[in-house]
Amino acid sequence: MFEIKAKDNRARVGVLKTKHGNVTTPALMPVIHPGRQTIDVAKHGATIVITNSYIIYKDKELKEKALADGVHKLINFDGPLMTDSGSFQLSVYGDIDISNTEVIDFQEAIGTDIGTSLDIPTAPYVTRQKAEEDLEITLERSKEAVQYKKDHNIEMLLNSVVQGSTFTDLREKCAKELRQLDADLYPIGAIVPLMEMYKYSDLVDVVMHSITNLPDNVPRHLMGAGHPMIFALCVAMGCDLFDSAAYVLYAEDDRLLSTRGTYKLENLTEMPCSCEVCSKYTPDDLRAMDKKERVKLIAQHNLAVSLGEIRTIRQAINDGDLMELVEERCRAHPALLDGLRKLGEYSDDLEYYNPSTKNSAFFYTGPESLQRAEIRRHIKKLREMDKKSTLILAPPTRKPYSKNISGKLGRFYVYGEELELDLEDSDMMVLDLPFGLIPLDIDEVYPLSQNDAPKIKDADSVEFIEDCIEEFAEYYNQILIHQSIVNHYDFDLERIHPQSDEIRYIKDDIRKIKTIADYQFGIGSGDALFDGKVKIEKSKKTGKIRHISVDGNLVANMRASDAFLVLTKEGGKKLHQATTYPHNRVVVNQDSEPFTRDGKSVFCQFVVEMDENIRPGDEVLIVNENDDLLAIGKALLNSCEIESFNNGQAIKTRKGFKK
Amino acid sequence: MFEIKAKDNRARVGVLKTKHGNVTTPALMPVIHPGRQTIDVAKHGATIVITNSYIIYKDKELKEKALADGVHKLINFDGPLMTDSGSFQLSVYGDIDISNTEVIDFQEAIGTDIGTSLDIPTAPYVTRQKAEEDLEITLERSKEAVQYKKDHNIEMLLNSVVQGSTFTDLREKCAKELRQLDADLYPIGAIVPLMEMYKYSDLVDVVMHSITNLPDNVPRHLMGAGHPMIFALCVAMGCDLFDSAAYVLYAEDDRLLSTRGTYKLENLTEMPCSCEVCSKYTPDDLRAMDKKERVKLIAQHNLAVSLGEIRTIRQAINDGDLMELVEERCRAHPALLDGLRKLGEYSDDLEYYNPSTKNSAFFYTGPESLQRAEIRRHIKKLREMDKKSTLILAPPTRKPYSKNISGKLGRFYVYGEELELDLEDSDMMVLDLPFGLIPLDIDEVYPLSQNDAPKIKDADSVEFIEDCIEEFAEYYNQILIHQSIVNHYDFDLERIHPQSDEIRYIKDDIRKIKTIADYQFGIGSGDALFDGKVKIEKSKKTGKIRHISVDGNLVANMRASDAFLVLTKEGGKKLHQATTYPHNRVVVNQDSEPFTRDGKSVFCQFVVEMDENIRPGDEVLIVNENDDLLAIGKALLNSCEIESFNNGQAIKTRKGFKK
Repeated sequence: MFEIKAKDNRARVGVLKTKHGNVTTPALMPVIHPGRQTIDVAKHGATIVITNSYIIYKDKELKEKALADGVHKLINFDGPLMTDSGSFQLSVYGDIDISNTEVIDFQEAIGTDIGTSLDIPTAPYVTRQKAEEDLEITLERSKEAVQYKKDHNIEMLLNSVVQGSTFTDLREKCAKELRQLDADLYPIGAIVPLMEMYKYSDLVDVVMHSITNLPDNVPRHLMGAGHPMIFALCVAMGCDLFDSAAYVLYAEDDRLLSTRGTYKLENLTEMPCSCEVCSKYTPDDLRAMDKKERVKLIAQHNLAVSLGEIRTIRQAINDGDLMELVEERCRAHPALLDGLRKLGEYSDDLEYYNPSTKNSAFFYTGPESLQRAEIRRHIKKLREMDKKSTLILAPPTRKPYSKNISGKLGRFYVYGEELELDLEDSDMMVLDLPFGLIPLDIDEVYPLSQNDAPKIKDADSVEFIEDCIEEFAEYYNQILIHQSIVNHYDFDLERIHPQSDEIRYIKDDIRKIKTIADYQFGIGSGDALFDGKVKIEKSKKTGKIRHISVDGNLVANMRASDAFLVLTKEGGKKLHQATTYPHNRVVVNQDSEPFTRDGKSVFCQFVVEMDENIRPGDEVLIVNENDDLLAIGKALLNSCEIESFNNGQAIKTRKGFKK
Repeated sequence: MFEIKAKDNRARVGVLKTKHGNVTTPALMPVIHPGRQTIDVAKHGATIVITNSYIIYKDKELKEKALADGVHKLINFDGPLMTDSGSFQLSVYGDIDISNTEVIDFQEAIGTDIGTSLDIPTAPYVTRQKAEEDLEITLERSKEAVQYKKDHNIEMLLNSVVQGSTFTDLREKCAKELRQLDADLYPIGAIVPLMEMYKYSDLVDVVMHSITNLPDNVPRHLMGAGHPMIFALCVAMGCDLFDSAAYVLYAEDDRLLSTRGTYKLENLTEMPCSCEVCSKYTPDDLRAMDKKERVKLIAQHNLAVSLGEIRTIRQAINDGDLMELVEERCRAHPALLDGLRKLGEYSDDLEYYNPSTKNSAFFYTGPESLQRAEIRRHIKKLREMDKKSTLILAPPTRKPYSKNISGKLGRFYVYGEELELDLEDSDMMVLDLPFGLIPLDIDEVYPLSQNDAPKIKDADSVEFIEDCIEEFAEYYNQILIHQSIVNHYDFDLERIHPQSDEIRYIKDDIRKIKTIADYQFGIGSGDALFDGKVKIEKSKKTGKIRHISVDGNLVANMRASDAFLVLTKEGGKKLHQATTYPHNRVVVNQDSEPFTRDGKSVFCQFVVEMDENIRPGDEVLIVNENDDLLAIGKALLNSCEIESFNNGQAIKTRKGFKK
């Protein structure tokens, strides 16, 4: 029903399958008002729409037509179609005259692709008692609906809405209970007031507490979120669907949507956008039109901007630079920036979902970038690495540092205790933004060279650098810091190490590949993989390491784009022998063993369990339940995701070990 | 020839007048390749274009046609048209076969609206000697061209290009010498390599050192700058014209422009934009087309995006939120962010050009916002204000603070020395971001209430707050800081002031209007304006002060939107009497005195001199050379600008004193 095609942080490009065709997500569903629609949203690029079943139900003529010809014909849209129940009306008017099962029956009867049960949208900031009582009913109705669907062989996909007001523990509870239901989609409800109040920080809490407790194999719909300003942030949190009545409602109010906020037509001297409407008309043109024509054109603008933003977001996920987009979009309003900063508190969760390698460079765009998954992951990995006695901190050069570092480095200051220096017993790292400490042996590994940051530093960056030094000083007996760093950061150090002249970066390819292996697969992997007579072949053109053989057997290739090791079968065997279950392993069931050995890719439903530390993009060992090595491959998802999916590729197998 | 219509920092919306009509600036001039153009740029919104006179000159057929029918007909564009000389060809090929005066003659002969002399584009980072030698020739030719134009009654407007490579003192020297020439437009040349190398920080230095030495009454053209990613930043520095060959060149290379950077078609899965082309086609559609058709569509996209961005920028200047746009756009690349941070070093210059009041709120978007003109200006003004003995720092509430501050404030900690507290001899300020210290008496004045910042603070903001306290502690005998501030910022204070219970904000309207007057017009203005029996009328609806009378005469109105005082004639007289020349004064010449007294607006050419501290938007006194008060009004420009213009409104007169 749903498949993930590309990932970036918690965001995913997915495909949602319905009776009326497939939809690529993230997607925006324009709201179609049955009987009142004037704009052909499909013509403007909409691939899925939403309409309100209760409005159809309440209008005799619409109801008859929908029951006779189907809802698709009624609203003249041939693609995937979602209907809402009367929940919104319920929240506004307090009462409606249809039951939960009736509204499900009706939606199925009119041929909806995705229907919704009758939840209770609980406003933000209500009393705890009110939120709990409402949630009770919402959960009951969701359970009833799912059961009803099963009992009555209802075909349509079913939404089960997460509620709980602004109580994050209630959102969590709701998500956990709904998770048990195996619903087809999980909307997150009643967040519109938060957006209207610009409470984006609370929105982030509500969404994150919902999504982190929902399964990964089901699309999440941020109900009522139709302003393009917030799409990027919400996609980064894992939202897949949005709906927009805003494109029409704002147009009726002479307001133009933009990723930067909202423009009132009355204040415009220019059409501030590149869409067709903004290119062809001036604000005066629009103001001179009669209302109907104007509303249609503004709605067309609003739709173009909203759908354009959704496409921009999908492209960013594919490119791996969604966070750069999010950080840009969140400058539209200080409250959005607050939301982004709040999201920083969920970095560890985002990190877990974030691929280990990407097509794009990491761009530092401000203090918020320091919270990003890539930096958190690097520092965490660095903590785990083996440490020598002395840490030598070299200044940044052009990247890759290890290629451009000079032979004679100059003077080094002593941070803390001064000891005799043994260069062989020292780790040499470059101190730079945004990754803090970059060991020269692994500096070509993604994203340690594939990044950029401004030269003029903000205070958070300086604090980050200072924190790195302070933390890592604990792990070493001696820290030596290059004079240019001391000057640049204005460190209060006085003693120059007497052996400064001896300090240089000694290139050692074998140490380098072992360090990369440890960084990539865990401590000890380097010694295990490269345990005999190592031969290293380099690219004649770039000088980069390409192939690594041990005792005449090719063990690994080094990928040029990100310097990660791609194991050969021989390498897989060595890593497998040297490490114990569950490290780097994905365990598949018995049935799939022959296919896996044959080199066929591993689908989610075949995975029994796996190393929780595997990230999307990681090179992995595929084993059976006896820990026999079946194949080597690349993980496409993390363990949570693989566990939750019953279909779709989990591991792209590189080579199988035939029996 | 050029007039300013709206301002924001150094940016201006202007009108450039040419034989073929007026152009609103900032404007983008698409480059038209004579004889090879396939896209009708006017249809897509271009209002001015640029073409190359040397290419026309070198092609026999084009040359004949241009001489016979004019260049407008040749390239089929009826509006304002600029031509470049052969400078670019000179820089590429090293030599060209036309002289400086010949190329001017030729451009005039083919009917160009704006022509260019033959400068030497000196690349960045050349030797000083090379830059100096080239500059010598460039200056000579500019002088020759201007003289030639005068001598031969040449009608076309003339560009004189600022060169000097990356030597900021040479750019400065060049700009200063060109300034003497009274050329019609000042392009800034040879910056394309800087953009190609992503040296935006150096670009900012080059542009700022050029522009700050050019007159304000002449448009500046950033030659060869055609990527929409950098338009906003460059407009903020005072650039008025851009030209784009990029829209075609990038299209020919299957690259799509965006304010976020450049997309390669081969990497696209989505059309990442809301323009007509991106709404109608998919990347696969484009890839399947034949090259000619594809290039045309991509060029159309590139043009739509570029022209859309120019309109967005003009709208932002009109709205007064250009810096928010700049700060957003500069997230596209860390090197652009570096450029923005570099621009922070020129804050005092931007402040001088920045209006004193705007239609939009100040949005904090990151540490760079702390460098903005509004904050610099406020802190500078605050330094000048009269100080009492004790400074009391209250925590922020909802804005306006003075309305929402509670009666009982709670405990205050002593920062520094503890003294006995006299509430009457205390200044009470709110400590908040982004404006640091906000005296409660002036908190409604723009932008002290009209602003927003994220609640989660970055380290620069915390440092800014700490710096504010540290600096202002010097001006007071005692500082008391509210406990919630101490907790929030984790200040290391221990003593609670024993009189904490007495501390509250005592509203006093007369003190308030006097403080606002001092803040607005300078110390002592409050006592001068409100020196008798003061009567204050408030809005029944909002409770805000509206009218202020003294001894029965209306002296000032308080503007609801920004709480600035707008003086009546009576108020003008009082301020005039109490202050001495040149404070708050604009001096007009004898000829214009009758018109000014009559209430007619003051044009730039009538202004003899003025208070250098007047900012655009300030309320001013208009006097004659004997310092007789002629009228009161509002400055539309700053003194530099008024001095440089020979036409256009300088002061919008409110009331004149008839003789």
